[in-house]
Amino acid sequence: MQNFTYNTPTTVYFGKDTHLKVGEIVKNYGYKKVMIQFGQGSVVKSGLLDIVVSLLEQNGISVVLAGGVEPNPKLSFIREAVKTAINEKVDLILAVGGGSSLDSSKFTALGAYNNVDVWDIVMGKVVPKGAIAVGCILTISAAGSEMSNSAVLTNTELNLKKGYSSEFNRCRFAICNPELTYTVSKYQTACGTSDIMSHTIERYFTLCDDVEITDGIAESLLRTVIKAGKIAVENPTDYEARANLMWASSLSHNGLTGCGRENYLAVHQIEHALSGEYDHVAHGAGLALLFPAWAKYVYKYNLPRFSKFFRNVWGIEEKDDDIACQKGIEVMKNYFKSIGMPTTLGELNVPESSIERIADLCTYGKTREVKNYIPLGYQEVVDILKLCI
Amino acid sequence: MQNFTYNTPTTVYFGKDTHLKVGEIVKNYGYKKVMIQFGQGSVVKSGLLDIVVSLLEQNGISVVLAGGVEPNPKLSFIREAVKTAINEKVDLILAVGGGSSLDSSKFTALGAYNNVDVWDIVMGKVVPKGAIAVGCILTISAAGSEMSNSAVLTNTELNLKKGYSSEFNRCRFAICNPELTYTVSKYQTACGTSDIMSHTIERYFTLCDDVEITDGIAESLLRTVIKAGKIAVENPTDYEARANLMWASSLSHNGLTGCGRENYLAVHQIEHALSGEYDHVAHGAGLALLFPAWAKYVYKYNLPRFSKFFRNVWGIEEKDDDIACQKGIEVMKNYFKSIGMPTTLGELNVPESSIERIADLCTYGKTREVKNYIPLGYQEVVDILKLCI
Repeated sequence: MQNFTYNTPTTVYFGKDTHLKVGEIVKNYGYKKVMIQFGQGSVVKSGLLDIVVSLLEQNGISVVLAGGVEPNPKLSFIREAVKTAINEKVDLILAVGGGSSLDSSKFTALGAYNNVDVWDIVMGKVVPKGAIAVGCILTISAAGSEMSNSAVLTNTELNLKKGYSSEFNRCRFAICNPELTYTVSKYQTACGTSDIMSHTIERYFTLCDDVEITDGIAESLLRTVIKAGKIAVENPTDYEARANLMWASSLSHNGLTGCGRENYLAVHQIEHALSGEYDHVAHGAGLALLFPAWAKYVYKYNLPRFSKFFRNVWGIEEKDDDIACQKGIEVMKNYFKSIGMPTTLGELNVPESSIERIADLCTYGKTREVKNYIPLGYQEVVDILKLCI
Repeated sequence: MQNFTYNTPTTVYFGKDTHLKVGEIVKNYGYKKVMIQFGQGSVVKSGLLDIVVSLLEQNGISVVLAGGVEPNPKLSFIREAVKTAINEKVDLILAVGGGSSLDSSKFTALGAYNNVDVWDIVMGKVVPKGAIAVGCILTISAAGSEMSNSAVLTNTELNLKKGYSSEFNRCRFAICNPELTYTVSKYQTACGTSDIMSHTIERYFTLCDDVEITDGIAESLLRTVIKAGKIAVENPTDYEARANLMWASSLSHNGLTGCGRENYLAVHQIEHALSGEYDHVAHGAGLALLFPAWAKYVYKYNLPRFSKFFRNVWGIEEKDDDIACQKGIEVMKNYFKSIGMPTTLGELNVPESSIERIADLCTYGKTREVKNYIPLGYQEVVDILKLCI
């Protein structure tokens, strides 16, 4: 087990009707002026935003609305939000939505607190000294941003999608009511399931030795998500399935499933190139497509770990390690297919001819290799993508 | 899944040599004057205390020593420590030791911050408004106090052992170096293993429905502890086993294994009466004795849950639920025996004639029932204790 620091300061208020406590919660923390960030309108249509604003105002808290966060939040939006946050002197940024609203809120909090251009923070030119507090009311189980230390934004001027991790990115609180995810579409539920799984799977496949306690937690978490994802896709109002997914979303990305191991997130790096180039590709769908292909390409370089994974997570009983992996990859692929995820680039409307371009993006123009059981350079990424045809 | 609030603000610095960072860590938090609480001298003998004091002083931090915390920390000691903490204006209490030093530090932090008698807080006469920060350098994996919200003290004047839970009881940080537990004796390692297991087992056996995600985490954690406990008893310097135990200690009592369920800690309540009456009984040893007896007495009242437990945690393959439980109880009992834990009251030097007295203490003089699958009143506790003869 490698040394690690575990820091999960986010207080999670989990369960039915918890969003109705938002006024009380924000008041108890002592915040006076809240910027609410939200997306393209679903929280307006559902009436959730009105409820939240009303509950905050009833508790004497002023509200500044900042709607219109796009999927893959844009730097231009965040820069405007930073200005507003500074001018209005907000002391809390409340994301009402999913990963995009959360990530946008985190960057706004960094920019406004340090009074600097967020892009300078992302590019490492400025080291932030803190951040305005961020809270959230989660409406989709997927990104895990509600408890994670990371956030992603897109600079459309430079056509660059960049992530930034910092302990200042941890939310002060997260209000997680699984019922708010009942209206998430079957497709987005499946994408979310894939995203949640990916955060644990990527941490599982590191270069370190086994970490028994972390492995066990990761495996049990994945078994739950596999089951709950399928149920939620088939029956969107199954509370237990929605609740298991939502809590798994937080636990998969708060650090718990990576304790004692180094994390590389290899498949994420290929997927970011894919959905960076094709904005219509949902992150979770890209991951679901890539995982089986990646596993097929690299499993031979760590048979013990891959066969452990397929046996303990996917229930493969085959005794031969190699055959167990081959069977497991098929079971995993079929699972993603069964919940409506793509199994080919074509199903994602990504042409085969783009493979070189994506591999080029992923390897920063053939200048880097993605760390994995074997280094994944340009040619390896091309080969993995070809397994997605 | 029931609603829950998850709050684990303790930053954990885990791994080899992490105790050597104590000066830097405390300085980074900005604390200036630290009271160190420790026990009966083992941290003096080992040289650990000297190292800690030296590292703090090198970082410009003043130190006040408060040694002599007894197992089951005493109110009288805490009252003195509170006076000192107030007079010396300490801004951090650092426990160097295990559960007793930690619990004593937590009570001192509550008493000093609120400037009240700790007993009034414990008895509910005063509601604390906060607490001085508490940190720790952990030297034994057992109580889980390093991340829990609870603490226990003993009022020797009234012969009462009382617990107190509050979010103010959460440590600011915990430094957890598994190597510091190499010198823990085989017996205390086994007691610690039992204590760690108990915190997860008690949360597992609640009156609520299954919570799949929490059940899975709990089961995998227990499987790890069972294995690591045995290894650590046999080979005290096995780093991986010590590390698995140490991290499991924190995760078993920080709330994770109880999310979505109510907790009653039924066996703890019987054990507190047992070790309250017999001070020489180690908490973990008492628990190891009581668990199989309790399970034998109540398993029939929730066959599905008990058989799930024995199958998923103890590897029982028997298909018949009742027989699976009977076999499982024997396997659990034999496990505790194999690591040197008692299987009878006699082995704990507790006379059979004390059974009525312990049951009387546990039920507050026959005035309450311990909540469980069936209410455990005086007679039921007597019957369970008789299974320990």
